[in-house]
Amino acid sequence: MSFQPRHPDFERRVRTSFAKQAAMRTIGASLEGVTPGEVCVTMPFQADLTQQHGFVHAGVVTALVDSACGYAALSLMEAGAAVLSVEFKVQLLAPARGAWFRARGRVVRAGRTLTVVAGELHAYARENARENETLVALLNGTMMTVRDRPGLND
Amino acid sequence: MSFQPRHPDFERRVRTSFAKQAAMRTIGASLEGVTPGEVCVTMPFQADLTQQHGFVHAGVVTALVDSACGYAALSLMEAGAAVLSVEFKVQLLAPARGAWFRARGRVVRAGRTLTVVAGELHAYARENARENETLVALLNGTMMTVRDRPGLND
Amino acid sequence: MSFQPRHPDFERRVRTSFAKQAAMRTIGASLEGVTPGEVCVTMPFQADLTQQHGFVHAGVVTALVDSACGYAALSLMEAGAAVLSVEFKVQLLAPARGAWFRARGRVVRAGRTLTVVAGELHAYARENARENETLVALLNGTMMTVRDRPGLND
Amino acid sequence: MSFQPRHPDFERRVRTSFAKQAAMRTIGASLEGVTPGEVCVTMPFQADLTQQHGFVHAGVVTALVDSACGYAALSLMEAGAAVLSVEFKVQLLAPARGAWFRARGRVVRAGRTLTVVAGELHAYARENARENETLVALLNGTMMTVRDRPGLND
Repeated sequence: MSFQPRHPDFERRVRTSFAKQAAMRTIGASLEGVTPGEVCVTMPFQADLTQQHGFVHAGVVTALVDSACGYAALSLMEAGAAVLSVEFKVQLLAPARGAWFRARGRVVRAGRTLTVVAGELHAYARENARENETLVALLNGTMMTVRDRPGLND
Repeated sequence: MSFQPRHPDFERRVRTSFAKQAAMRTIGASLEGVTPGEVCVTMPFQADLTQQHGFVHAGVVTALVDSACGYAALSLMEAGAAVLSVEFKVQLLAPARGAWFRARGRVVRAGRTLTVVAGELHAYARENARENETLVALLNGTMMTVRDRPGLND
Repeated sequence: MSFQPRHPDFERRVRTSFAKQAAMRTIGASLEGVTPGEVCVTMPFQADLTQQHGFVHAGVVTALVDSACGYAALSLMEAGAAVLSVEFKVQLLAPARGAWFRARGRVVRAGRTLTVVAGELHAYARENARENETLVALLNGTMMTVRDRPGLND
Repeated sequence: MSFQPRHPDFERRVRTSFAKQAAMRTIGASLEGVTPGEVCVTMPFQADLTQQHGFVHAGVVTALVDSACGYAALSLMEAGAAVLSVEFKVQLLAPARGAWFRARGRVVRAGRTLTVVAGELHAYARENARENETLVALLNGTMMTVRDRPGLND
């Protein structure tokens, strides 16, 4: 699918907003790529983000894919609007173990008020290498375009 | 609903496993209460866990309610079994702002392999006070009882 | 929770709209009760609505709870608006077998554009009797208030 | 993705089981194609399956995609096992209007006990024609392989 961004500098907008997500900094996540309707976020494995079995916590997995999907939605919104997550479903297909992780979020349908998004998280066994990819999680969700709410942008 | 735990010391088991969740320590979460089929987790507001608008990130909200629900499920499992999240849906009803947050997870139905769980997160406006409660998020999910997988417990 | 309807004759509105749902007539469903923010729909067992094991099909279960939830949402909307299902999750806890079924839908939070709904379906072993209740399914969803779309009402 | 069926005659098994789904007959649905891990189901528009605005009811949409996904899962199961829907999420992207509809269900990951499935429903404006395709709904769900339950097959 191909989308037309309504904001002239959608990439800078997404990058600026992502930089404001203190939570992403805290978990060591980076914005990898931004194209209209698709955003990727990566994160190295960190022992202090694990659950009881030593895998990355499902909440951290969710944080990565939700951010990727939210920014995929924002990449298509007009200036002045803000994005909020309405709901998402996450399915966990394999334990989140590996050297690093990559979340991809993409827009399935961009409506006036609601944007349907889909995303997934892959794990990679070795640093800086794309081989040995494991599909860890799927996210299917709904994002909302919020307009005219003072102080709420991007 | 009232459930019968299969593990003689289910509370200690849950508390020991929760203490192994490095992610919970990292986000400053505490295990509040453990009863058969119901677990509560609390967390103070922290600026380094926010998204771009200054609210607690949806992934952190999810981490809290998912942990509460997972341990609600584990509180009913027999010794030797481990709990894994299969899937969950999170609905975000209000921005996660406040002085502190409380996630409650409870078992709706405990089957042999799958446990249906439901949870919610409330925000509280003032420290150490239960007044001014806001319902922030709902979680509905499925947990799995994993047996006979070497090295996977609790 | 207690809700204030914005439509003076919300019950008649819901009943009139339900009567237009040809699908409900086809599956033999009846509108049982309508209060602000809560609607119940019942249906007797019918062999021609079953799946391969003889249980009522998950799609029919969904139809009943989705209608109950959609009308719970509509019961709180202003005149002229229409309700549409945005998304729902259905969890199936037990096979849908029994003499009759009762779906309950209720509003959890009614926003300006989106309404969060929750519902469930119970099965009953004997005709006209409320004893031997089995929880068959849970639904958690999002309904939308559609305004100013010509020809789309209720 | 490519899957290896464990049943020598998986297609006949799926077709035989589908023929037992009285609900599919009642709504006029047909099994179109069966390959390992993917199944398609079609249905012509029928006025007696509509909701109040004249679109096909979300429950009927769900029935079609759930059946397609359930049989996609069953197509990979060993003889003697039965498939049950554990849970699914349905997202409605456009009103279900058109001359006919096509649901596609496919397996994303087939585990020993749980199968992750994804499906969608498209609407077509004209009979017997594939042009003017509209994406109406997405389904993401979990199917279960049930073993050793007397009387429960396929």
